[in-house]
Amino acid sequence: MAEASNSDTGKENPTFKIRRLEISDKRKGYMELLGQLTVTGSLTDEEFDRRFQEISSYGDDHLICVIEDESSGKIAATGSVVIEKKFLRSCGKVGHIEDVVVDSEFRGKHLGKRVVEFLTDHSREMGCYKVILDCSVEKKVFYEKCGMLNRGIQMSKYFD
Amino acid sequence: MAEASNSDTGKENPTFKIRRLEISDKRKGYMELLGQLTVTGSLTDEEFDRRFQEISSYGDDHLICVIEDESSGKIAATGSVVIEKKFLRSCGKVGHIEDVVVDSEFRGKHLGKRVVEFLTDHSREMGCYKVILDCSVEKKVFYEKCGMLNRGIQMSKYFD
Repeated sequence: MAEASNSDTGKENPTFKIRRLEISDKRKGYMELLGQLTVTGSLTDEEFDRRFQEISSYGDDHLICVIEDESSGKIAATGSVVIEKKFLRSCGKVGHIEDVVVDSEFRGKHLGKRVVEFLTDHSREMGCYKVILDCSVEKKVFYEKCGMLNRGIQMSKYFD
Repeated sequence: MAEASNSDTGKENPTFKIRRLEISDKRKGYMELLGQLTVTGSLTDEEFDRRFQEISSYGDDHLICVIEDESSGKIAATGSVVIEKKFLRSCGKVGHIEDVVVDSEFRGKHLGKRVVEFLTDHSREMGCYKVILDCSVEKKVFYEKCGMLNRGIQMSKYFD
């Protein structure tokens, strides 16, 4: 039976659990996943832990979420959001979504959409009046499916 | 003499001083200036002070700068930058520039460029590998003059 066979491999109905990044996720392929997005560079455990604590110190104002494939214990997707506090719009807040990436092994399972929705929901709960992100033109259709609209351009300057 | 006449008005060589936002800047037209950018809503002094303290608690990770016209004591321009801490790029940082605006009375004096340079310099000193911002297509040429390049698009979702 095909079903039994799938079940035997432990790959049937993998449970994708979405949650906040934990310090132990470095051992679950978190950095390798970020490496599918851009350059990660080398990072000691101490450097990872220090940055984790720095980000954690912001509490709900800087949330990194991950989706763990519980059948393999591997981090399958991630994204983050920084809550910016403003004076305008009656002391409004804005959620800046960053670094959304889905492991190539797990694409086509709508995990990216789940990450964006999680970060969007968090921003709404934090009282933000909007959530924004920057992406390449190729990603426009994906983010439209997440309920977002293209409203401007991104400018950037890289330092040496 | 034209020179003497200009001098008499006190408008000759106004000294534009760039510095961090101070809590007393609410009385110097800071909110009215933001109102030239977008909706500010009404804000009591207590609400302003509370948000000022919240932002100040981030120290150098959230800097709001202003340019004061010292001859009139009026805030002529402003802009802010949020420093985001990442894991990628060897625990890299990114400066997010926000809410750059120059009072209509003081345009054409390169104050916007001074604001962007101030925020860019701060980001570099904070160890960022890049500085980014979102703007309308119409502002592209201005930000190119500030040394930035268009590298993507902005997507956004507004909450009700």
